[in-house]
Amino acid sequence: MSIGLHPPKSLLPVAGIRLSSLHSGIKADSSRDDLVLIELSPDSQVAAVFTRNRFCAAPVTLAKQHLSAERPRYLLINSGNANAGTGPEGLQDAQLCCQQVAGTTGVTTQQVLPFSTGVIGARLPVTRMTHAIPALVESLSPDQWLAAAHGIMTTDTLPKGVSRQLQIDGKTVTITGMCKGSGMICPDMATMLAYVATDAELSQMDLQQCLQQVVATSFNSITVDGDTSTNDACLLIATGQSGAQVNPGHSDFMSALHEVFRQLAQSIIRDGEGATKFVEVRVEQAASDEDARIMAYTIAHSPLVKTALFASDANWGRILAAAGRAPVSQLDIDRVDLFLGDVCLIENGNPHADYTEEKGTEIMQQQDIVITARLKLGQGESTIWTTDLSYDYIKINAEYRS
Amino acid sequence: MSIGLHPPKSLLPVAGIRLSSLHSGIKADSSRDDLVLIELSPDSQVAAVFTRNRFCAAPVTLAKQHLSAERPRYLLINSGNANAGTGPEGLQDAQLCCQQVAGTTGVTTQQVLPFSTGVIGARLPVTRMTHAIPALVESLSPDQWLAAAHGIMTTDTLPKGVSRQLQIDGKTVTITGMCKGSGMICPDMATMLAYVATDAELSQMDLQQCLQQVVATSFNSITVDGDTSTNDACLLIATGQSGAQVNPGHSDFMSALHEVFRQLAQSIIRDGEGATKFVEVRVEQAASDEDARIMAYTIAHSPLVKTALFASDANWGRILAAAGRAPVSQLDIDRVDLFLGDVCLIENGNPHADYTEEKGTEIMQQQDIVITARLKLGQGESTIWTTDLSYDYIKINAEYRS
Repeated sequence: MSIGLHPPKSLLPVAGIRLSSLHSGIKADSSRDDLVLIELSPDSQVAAVFTRNRFCAAPVTLAKQHLSAERPRYLLINSGNANAGTGPEGLQDAQLCCQQVAGTTGVTTQQVLPFSTGVIGARLPVTRMTHAIPALVESLSPDQWLAAAHGIMTTDTLPKGVSRQLQIDGKTVTITGMCKGSGMICPDMATMLAYVATDAELSQMDLQQCLQQVVATSFNSITVDGDTSTNDACLLIATGQSGAQVNPGHSDFMSALHEVFRQLAQSIIRDGEGATKFVEVRVEQAASDEDARIMAYTIAHSPLVKTALFASDANWGRILAAAGRAPVSQLDIDRVDLFLGDVCLIENGNPHADYTEEKGTEIMQQQDIVITARLKLGQGESTIWTTDLSYDYIKINAEYRS
Repeated sequence: MSIGLHPPKSLLPVAGIRLSSLHSGIKADSSRDDLVLIELSPDSQVAAVFTRNRFCAAPVTLAKQHLSAERPRYLLINSGNANAGTGPEGLQDAQLCCQQVAGTTGVTTQQVLPFSTGVIGARLPVTRMTHAIPALVESLSPDQWLAAAHGIMTTDTLPKGVSRQLQIDGKTVTITGMCKGSGMICPDMATMLAYVATDAELSQMDLQQCLQQVVATSFNSITVDGDTSTNDACLLIATGQSGAQVNPGHSDFMSALHEVFRQLAQSIIRDGEGATKFVEVRVEQAASDEDARIMAYTIAHSPLVKTALFASDANWGRILAAAGRAPVSQLDIDRVDLFLGDVCLIENGNPHADYTEEKGTEIMQQQDIVITARLKLGQGESTIWTTDLSYDYIKINAEYRS
C-alpha cells in the first residue's frame, strides 16, 4: 500500500539524455525490467552522493573510482541483485558489465558507472547482463524515463518520477528525475537510487554544490527505520543543452530543483514498507539546526511513536518522552510546545488546557500527519519525513527471504 | 510470552528490610496488587540512579529531592499509573502519598521516596492510595519480597527477582533484588523499576559507586526498542545488619552483586514485549569500549536485524550493514569477523568459505542467540542484551490504549 502516491503520468525528456530498459534475466519475473541504461551527451556534468555506510557494495566502490577518473557517458543500473557482500569477484562482475557497455558504445570503461539494487550476497548473472547490453544500447531513446523508472524498481509498489520546467533567460529549462526505494532500508531490496537530469548548464563544482544543498533537505531528511543501504546513490546530471546558464545562487532554478528532489524523496516515504501514514516531524526554535535534526530523527525513529501513529493513537507522552531522550545540547521540557497538525497538545511541557483526546484522535486518523515540537531555545529548525510502524513492516522484513 | 524465564521460587529476606503489598484500587483488576511499601532499617544506606530522560515523572523529581535531603526510611511504589505528564498537580499527589506514609509511621515526609509506573497523563487516585497506606504499614514483613515483586508488575508476564548469599569474614551476606519492566519502553506500562537490598555494610559513597559499576553492565546494557521511560529508577540498599563490611574493591561481593543485577536486567529482556528471542550482541576488539558500545547498540536497535531475528533468518548482510553505519570513531569493514553463536559468517568482511545458510539458520532458530562482531582494531568491548521485533511488539504497542 502506498500513501497518496500516484505513478507519474508522463516524464519530460531532457535534451542530451537517452534511456532504455529491458528484462535481462536478473529478476525471476520476465515481465519486469531489470536492466536500465542512461546515456549522457558528451558535455554533460555529473554530481553524485553515495551511501556513507562503511559496508558498501562493489558497484558503489567502482562508480566512485570511475567518477573520479573520467566524465561519465553511461549509467548502467540493474535491479534484483545488489552485488553487495560479494568480495573481489563482485568488483570484477561490475567491471565486466561496464566493459561491455564501453565496448558496445565506443567509450572507455571508466566512462561507465555501475549501480545495483536487490538481494545481497549473490553474484550478478553477468553473462545474461552482457548479452542484453547491445539491445539496451540499440533501444536508447529520450522518452524512456517512465520505462526506466519501472526498470529500477524492486519492492517499490509504484514507479517514482517527477518533471518541472521553468523559463530562464528566455530559455525553457527542464528538470526530470526518477528514483526507487521503499525505505532507507538495507541491504535487501530497498536501496535508494535517484537520477535527476536537467538541460541547464552548470560547472561541475556548481552542480555538486546544488546537489549537496537539495539532498540535505530531501533524501537526507527521510527515514523509514534508520537503516541505510550499502548501495544508496543519488546523481544529478546537467547536459547544458538548453543553453541556460545557472548556478547554486539562482533562486528559481534551485527552488525547482529542490521541489523535484523533495517530491522524489517523499515518494519513497509514501511507498515505505508497510507504511499507512505519511508523517512530517518538524522541530522548531531549537538551540541549533543540528539539535533540531537530532530531535526530529529521535522522534521519527522511536518505535513507540511509530506504533502509536499506526494505531492512530494521539499518545503525546510517547512523543514527549522521545523528545526528552534526544541527545541534544540543550532542552528545557518546561518550555516545550507540542502540536499534532494545528492542535496544541502540550504547552510549556504540560497538557494544553483546551486539548481533548478527541481532537488528537481526529488528526491521528488522517493519512498525512504533521508533528511539531517547538523548543523556544533559539532559531534551529529541521523537518524529517517518515512513516508509521505497522504489522506489514514486520511481515515484509521478516518474510523477505522466506 | 517470555523466553526461558521462570518466576523466582523464593526470595531470601534481607535483615533490616520489611515489605508489604496490596490492591488499593489503581489497577482495575482487584486481584492484582498495585501498591507496595518497603521499609528500611534506620541505619540503611541508599544509592539510586534515575531515568536520564529530560521528560521525567513527578515521583522521580520528588524522590530525587527527598533523597538529597534525608536518609530514606520508606519506599512507596505504585503500579498502574505513572503520575507522568501531570504537571504541578502530579507533584502534589506524590507529596500527599509520602505525607500519609510519614504520618502513619512517624518519619518525615522527606524520608519517604515515591515511585510510580503505569499509564501517563492521568492523575493518581490519591484518596484510594492514602486510605490503603495504614493497612500497608500494618502488614510489613521481611518475607514479602515475592509479593512485592508481583505488586510492582504492569505488562510483565512474570514477577522478577533473584537472591544470592555469600560468606564474608565468616558472616552470611544476603543480596535480594526484584524488578519490573518488559521493555525499556515508555511511557506507558513498561517503566523499569529495580530494588536490590543487601545486609552488607557500606558507606553511602561506596554504595553509590557499587551501583554505578553494576548498573553499567546490567540495566544500562539492555534494550528492547531504544526508548527510555520517564519513570525508570534503580535503587541499591545496604542495611549493614550482617555486620560484614565491604566496598567496591571486594571482588566476591561485587561479583555476587553483579550477578544479581545482570540476572534482573536479563529477566526484563526475557519478558520483553512481544519478544520471541533473547539476543546477546557482543562487539570485541573495537578501538574503544565506547565504540564497541555504540556499535552493539546500533546492531541491537536495527529494525532490520530485529525482524531477521524474529524470522530466524541468518541475514548477515543486515548485521554487517548495521555495523557499517554505526557512528564509531574507527572501522575497517575488511577486517570485520561476524559470528552467530560459534558459526563464523563473515571473515575479514567477506562471507566465510565454510559458511552455509543451513549452519546460520540452525543458530537463528534457537531461542537464545549470540551475535559477535570482532573488529580487530583494539581492546574495546561491550555486550548488550536485546530482543527481536515481532508482530506482537506492534500489537502490544499499537493497541495498548485501545
